[in-house]
Amino acid sequence: MSDPQPRVAILMGSDSDLPVMRGAGDILASFGIAHEVKVLSAHRSPARAVDYVTTAPSRGVRVFICGAGMAAHLAGVVAAHTALPVIGVPLKSESAGLGGADALYSTVQMPPGIPVATVAVGGAKNAGHLAARILAVSDPDLSARIERFRREMDEGVAAKNAQLDALGVDGYLASKR
Amino acid sequence: MSDPQPRVAILMGSDSDLPVMRGAGDILASFGIAHEVKVLSAHRSPARAVDYVTTAPSRGVRVFICGAGMAAHLAGVVAAHTALPVIGVPLKSESAGLGGADALYSTVQMPPGIPVATVAVGGAKNAGHLAARILAVSDPDLSARIERFRREMDEGVAAKNAQLDALGVDGYLASKR
Amino acid sequence: MSDPQPRVAILMGSDSDLPVMRGAGDILASFGIAHEVKVLSAHRSPARAVDYVTTAPSRGVRVFICGAGMAAHLAGVVAAHTALPVIGVPLKSESAGLGGADALYSTVQMPPGIPVATVAVGGAKNAGHLAARILAVSDPDLSARIERFRREMDEGVAAKNAQLDALGVDGYLASKR
Amino acid sequence: MSDPQPRVAILMGSDSDLPVMRGAGDILASFGIAHEVKVLSAHRSPARAVDYVTTAPSRGVRVFICGAGMAAHLAGVVAAHTALPVIGVPLKSESAGLGGADALYSTVQMPPGIPVATVAVGGAKNAGHLAARILAVSDPDLSARIERFRREMDEGVAAKNAQLDALGVDGYLASKR
Amino acid sequence: MSDPQPRVAILMGSDSDLPVMRGAGDILASFGIAHEVKVLSAHRSPARAVDYVTTAPSRGVRVFICGAGMAAHLAGVVAAHTALPVIGVPLKSESAGLGGADALYSTVQMPPGIPVATVAVGGAKNAGHLAARILAVSDPDLSARIERFRREMDEGVAAKNAQLDALGVDGYLASKR
Amino acid sequence: MSDPQPRVAILMGSDSDLPVMRGAGDILASFGIAHEVKVLSAHRSPARAVDYVTTAPSRGVRVFICGAGMAAHLAGVVAAHTALPVIGVPLKSESAGLGGADALYSTVQMPPGIPVATVAVGGAKNAGHLAARILAVSDPDLSARIERFRREMDEGVAAKNAQLDALGVDGYLASKR
Amino acid sequence: MSDPQPRVAILMGSDSDLPVMRGAGDILASFGIAHEVKVLSAHRSPARAVDYVTTAPSRGVRVFICGAGMAAHLAGVVAAHTALPVIGVPLKSESAGLGGADALYSTVQMPPGIPVATVAVGGAKNAGHLAARILAVSDPDLSARIERFRREMDEGVAAKNAQLDALGVDGYLASKR
Amino acid sequence: MSDPQPRVAILMGSDSDLPVMRGAGDILASFGIAHEVKVLSAHRSPARAVDYVTTAPSRGVRVFICGAGMAAHLAGVVAAHTALPVIGVPLKSESAGLGGADALYSTVQMPPGIPVATVAVGGAKNAGHLAARILAVSDPDLSARIERFRREMDEGVAAKNAQLDALGVDGYLASKR
Repeated sequence: MSDPQPRVAILMGSDSDLPVMRGAGDILASFGIAHEVKVLSAHRSPARAVDYVTTAPSRGVRVFICGAGMAAHLAGVVAAHTALPVIGVPLKSESAGLGGADALYSTVQMPPGIPVATVAVGGAKNAGHLAARILAVSDPDLSARIERFRREMDEGVAAKNAQLDALGVDGYLASKR
Repeated sequence: MSDPQPRVAILMGSDSDLPVMRGAGDILASFGIAHEVKVLSAHRSPARAVDYVTTAPSRGVRVFICGAGMAAHLAGVVAAHTALPVIGVPLKSESAGLGGADALYSTVQMPPGIPVATVAVGGAKNAGHLAARILAVSDPDLSARIERFRREMDEGVAAKNAQLDALGVDGYLASKR
Repeated sequence: MSDPQPRVAILMGSDSDLPVMRGAGDILASFGIAHEVKVLSAHRSPARAVDYVTTAPSRGVRVFICGAGMAAHLAGVVAAHTALPVIGVPLKSESAGLGGADALYSTVQMPPGIPVATVAVGGAKNAGHLAARILAVSDPDLSARIERFRREMDEGVAAKNAQLDALGVDGYLASKR
Repeated sequence: MSDPQPRVAILMGSDSDLPVMRGAGDILASFGIAHEVKVLSAHRSPARAVDYVTTAPSRGVRVFICGAGMAAHLAGVVAAHTALPVIGVPLKSESAGLGGADALYSTVQMPPGIPVATVAVGGAKNAGHLAARILAVSDPDLSARIERFRREMDEGVAAKNAQLDALGVDGYLASKR
Repeated sequence: MSDPQPRVAILMGSDSDLPVMRGAGDILASFGIAHEVKVLSAHRSPARAVDYVTTAPSRGVRVFICGAGMAAHLAGVVAAHTALPVIGVPLKSESAGLGGADALYSTVQMPPGIPVATVAVGGAKNAGHLAARILAVSDPDLSARIERFRREMDEGVAAKNAQLDALGVDGYLASKR
Repeated sequence: MSDPQPRVAILMGSDSDLPVMRGAGDILASFGIAHEVKVLSAHRSPARAVDYVTTAPSRGVRVFICGAGMAAHLAGVVAAHTALPVIGVPLKSESAGLGGADALYSTVQMPPGIPVATVAVGGAKNAGHLAARILAVSDPDLSARIERFRREMDEGVAAKNAQLDALGVDGYLASKR
Repeated sequence: MSDPQPRVAILMGSDSDLPVMRGAGDILASFGIAHEVKVLSAHRSPARAVDYVTTAPSRGVRVFICGAGMAAHLAGVVAAHTALPVIGVPLKSESAGLGGADALYSTVQMPPGIPVATVAVGGAKNAGHLAARILAVSDPDLSARIERFRREMDEGVAAKNAQLDALGVDGYLASKR
Repeated sequence: MSDPQPRVAILMGSDSDLPVMRGAGDILASFGIAHEVKVLSAHRSPARAVDYVTTAPSRGVRVFICGAGMAAHLAGVVAAHTALPVIGVPLKSESAGLGGADALYSTVQMPPGIPVATVAVGGAKNAGHLAARILAVSDPDLSARIERFRREMDEGVAAKNAQLDALGVDGYLASKR
C-alpha cells in the first residue's frame, strides 16, 4: 500500500476499526496518494503512538487521519504532538450505545490551539477526500484530479436521473436489485 | 495545601477550571487528606503531563482527580500512563454548548483496560469523596471519618425536616433568605 | 468463583444483566482477585440489597461493582449504605430506547457526598479493571500485575501493527475471518 | 399546611428544591387536600426515608409526590417501599448541565413492577393535579372540584381571547406589562 | 376481556402498538382488574376518541392507559377531556429514529393543569402496575394483592440468588439456555 | 390586525407565547396578508379549539400557524380537525429544560395522514414566510412580493459586505454598537 | 408517473433514498396529483440542482418535496432558489448513527426568510399529504378528496375497534399474522 | 486586514456571527497569514456565495473558513463549489435552543465526496489554527511559527503551574480577579 513515501497516515485505535477506516485508504489510492495504515492506541500504547507521530513526518507523512470510537481521544492526542493537520473520524460503537455521539463529541470539541478536523460519524471516506484537498493546496496535479472527481460526481447524478426518467421509479428500483 | 506527602493529585486542563475543581480539594481537606493541585493539559502540554503522572507516585500520590471540559481527554491520558485509580470530572463549557454532555462522554466512555472513574458533570466535590473512599479501603482511620461524615449528612437531613416542621414552608424559605 | 474471602462484589439489577456483567468477573479473575456475584434489586428487593451491602464488608468485600439499566439506581442505593468505593456500570436496554443514556445519567449524576465511580455504557470489563486499581493502592503485588497487564496491552498493539505491516490491510482482514 | 390527616406527602431530595416543589402544595391546597412536606434523601438519609415511607400510610397518606434532580432516585426508592401510587417530579440542575434530561430519565425509566408516575421536568404543579385526580377516583366531591377547575381553565382561555380581540396584540402585551 | 364493568381502559394510537400494550392488560388481569382495549387515534379519529373518553366513566372506567409513539399526543388529548387519572406509555418507533425520546417528551412534558402520569419508554407493564396502585387507594383487597406481588418480586430475587450461588455464573447461564 | 377576511390564523397555546409568535404576524403584515391571532389550548380548552378550527375556514382562513412549547400538541390537534395546511412552531420553555427539543419532537413527529409543516424552534417568522409561500401558490401578486423580498435579502447581504469591506471588522462592529 | 404537467417535484439526495421517498409519490398518486421524481444533490451536483429548481415552475411544479439524510441540506438549498413552498423529509442514516436527529436538525432549523416545511424523520408519506393540503388551498376538488381520505382514516379506526371487540386481543393479533 | 493576497477566507452566514468568528482572524493574524472576511449566506444570497467561492482562488485564497448556526449549511455549500479545503465552525444560537447541536450536526455530517473539516461549537479560534496547519504543509516558515506557538502553549502551562505552586489556590484565584 505504501511503496513510495507515504504522504498520509491512517491511524486507528483498534483493529476492529479497520473495515470502516480502510475507506479512507481506498479514496487516497483512487487519487494516487501514497499512505500507510497503523493501529495506534492513545490509551493502550501511548508511548508508541507519540513515537510514531513525531517520526512520521521524517518519512514523508504530511496529514494524519485518526479513527476511534467511544471516548475517541486518538485524534486529539496525535494533534497534541504534531504541527501537521489531523483529521478525526468518530466511529460508532454498537456495544456502548449513544450512536456515535460520544465519539463525535470526543473528537470535535477540542480546546483552542489543538484543532482536529472532524468528519461525519463513520466518515472514513470523507477523511480521505479531506486529506486529498489539504495536500492539493500545494499540488496542482492532485488538485486537477480532485476537480475531475467532482465532475464525475456531478455526471453520476445526471446519469442516475436519466436512468430514473427512462425506467420510472419501479423500474429503477428493480434494476438495482 | 500540601505540606505532608500528597496522597491525591487534583489536575485540571485549564486554570479557568479552578473555581469548580477546588471543590475536590475542600472535601479532601475536610477529611485531612494531603493533596496537590496542578494545571496540566493533555493537549497543550502533553509531555509535562506524562512526566507529572509518572513521577507523582514517588512523591506519595495514590489517586488522580482530573477535571476537564469539552473533548475532556485529560483523565483518559492520565489513566493511560499510570496503574493508579483515576477519577474524571466532566466540566460544562458555556461557550461550547452541549451542556457538559461532550465532556461527560469524553470522560466516561473509555475503552477496556484503561478505566476512568467518572463522577457527575461539575461533580468536583464527589471526586474528593470518591478519592477518600478509595484511600479508606486501606486506612481504617479515614474510613471512620467517612462514616462520621455519612452520619452528619443523615443528621443534617433530619435537622432540616425538624426546622421545616417547625416553620412551615413559608417560614422555612423566609429563614433561608 | 469465591473460595477465599471475596474482595469485590459484583451486583446487578437483573439476571438478564449477567452475560455483560460477567465481564467484570473475568477481569478480576485474570488478576487473581476473589469476588462474588449477586442479583440484587434496588427496587424489587430493597431490604435484601441493604442487608447485603451492610454485611458484605465483614466477609471481606472492599469494592462494590453494580450494573443496572434504565433508571439505574442500584449503584446509588449501594453507595448510600456503605463507605466503600462503589463502581457503576450503566447498561443499555434494547426495549427502552435511549441507547443507555438513561442508565448513564442515572448512574453518574450522583449528588455531593455519595459518589459512584461510573464507567462506560456496558463497560463491565473496565469496572473490573477499576476495582483492581483501587485494591492495588494498598497491594503492591496486585499493582505489579496491573503493570504487567499494561505492558501486555502495549505489546499487543505492537504485535498487531507488525502483522498489519506484514500482511497489508486485505491480508490482515482475511486473517481475522 | 397539615392540620387534618395528610392525604399526600410532598418529598424532595434537598431543601433547595422547595421553591419549585411548593407548587405541588399550592395546587393541593387549592383543592382542599391536606398534605405534608418533607426533605428526604434516598442517598444521604436512606433509613429515614424508608422509615417515613413505611409509616406515612398509617397517618393517612395515600399518594407520594417526590421531587429530585440529577440522578433522581428518590421517587424510585419510595416506590420500592410502598404499594401506594408515587408521582415523580424531575428537577433541572443548573450546575450539572443536561437540562433536566438526567433527572427525567432517572425518574421515568423504572423497571417493571415498581412504577413511578412521572410528570414534566419542573412539573411540580402537575404533580399536585395528578395526586388530586388519583384521590378523586374514590372521592366524588374532589372529582367535582377538579371538574370545576377544568371549566375555569376553559373559561380562562376564552377570557384571554376576548381581551386579545378587544385590545389587539400590541394592546394586550402592553396591558401585561 | 371485559365481562364485568371495566375499571381501566387501555387505549393505543395504532393496532401496531397492540403487542407491546397488551403487557398492560396482562398485569391488570393478574390483579383481577377488569379492563377493555381500544384503538383510538388523537389524530385520525379525534371525535371518536373524545366520545369514548367522555362516555367511558359511565361504564365504570376509572383510569385510562394510553400508548402512542412519535408525536405521542393520545394521552394528552385524553387527559384534556377527563378528570380521571391518565397514564401515558411512550412507544419507540423503529422507522422514525430518535429511540423513543420523541414519544417520551410528547407524553411527559404536559402543561400545568392537565397531567399525564408517564411511565418508561415501552413500559406497558408498569402502566398496568400504576393503574393497580391507583385503584388500590380505595380498594383494600387490591392493595393486599399488590403487597403480595411485591413480596413475590422480593422472593423471586432471593430465589435467583440461591440458584446463582448453587450453580455459579456458568452453570446459571447454562440453565437459562 | 384583521379588517379584511383573515387568510391566516396564528394560534398559540398560551398568551406567554405572544411575544415570540407575533413575529409570524409581523411577516404576514409585511406581505399584506390579513390574519387573526388567538390563544387556543389543545389541553385546557379543547372544545373551543376544535370549534375555532372547524369554523375558521368559513371566515376565509386558509392556513393555520400554531405555536406551542413542551408537549406541543396544538398543531397536531388542529391538523386532526382540518384539511387545510397547518404550520407548527416549537417553542423553547425555560422552566422545563430540554432546550425546545421536547416541543420540536412533539410537533414534527406526526403520524402518516396528519402532517404538520414544522419550522425551527422559536421560528415564528419563518412560519409567516411559509404561510405566505403556501398562499402564493395561487396568488401571483403575493408571489411577486415574495420574490421582491428574496431580492431584498440578497441585496441586504451585499450591502453588509460592502460596509464590512469599507470599515473592516473593528469598524463594522463599532458601527453596530 | 408524470404524463400531465407535474404539480409536485419529489427530490432526493441519493438514489438510496428512493425506497422511502417513493412513499410521497404513492400518496400524491392516490390523490391524483401529477408529480415527478429526481435525484438531485445539493453537494455533488449543485448547479444541476439550482437549474432544476429554477426551471421546474415553468413546467407546472408548485411544491417541492426534498428528502435527505445526515447533513440534509437539499431542502434548504432548494428553498434558497425558489419562492414556492418546500417540504423537507429528514432521513435516518444507519451508518452515521444519531438516529436521524442530524437530518432533522439540518432540515428544520432554517434561518428567517427561507422556511422549510419539515415533516417527521422518514415521513415521506406525510410530505405527500402536506403537498396535497397546500395544493388544495386553491383546488376545491382536491380539498374534497382530502376530506374523503380523512373520513376513511376515521372509519378505518372504527373498523379496527369493531374487529378488536369481536375477536379480543389474542384473536385480533392472530388474524394479523 | 487583507493588504497582500488573502490566503484564507473567513465567511459567515450573518453579521451577528462576527464577534465569534473574528477569533479565526485573530489567530491567522498572529501567524502572519493574510485573510479576508465576508458575510455570505447559503440561503439568503446563494448566487453571490457561489460567485465568491468560485472566484476567490484566483485572488489567492487557499482555505475557506465558514461559520454558521442553526441549520448551518454554509460550509457544505461552499465545499460543494470548490476543491479547496473547507473548515466549518458550528455556532450556538440562543433563540433556537438545542445548544449548538443543530449546527454541529448540520456541519459535520457531510456525505462522501464533499468533506467539511469541522471544529468545536463556537471554535472559531481553532478554525484559524487548522487553516494555519493546512497552509503550513507546504510552507516551512509557517510550520516553524506553529511549532513556536506550540512551545509557547507548553510554557504557558508551566508558568501557570509555577504561579499556582507559589501562590496556592486561594492566592492564585485572587491574583486573577
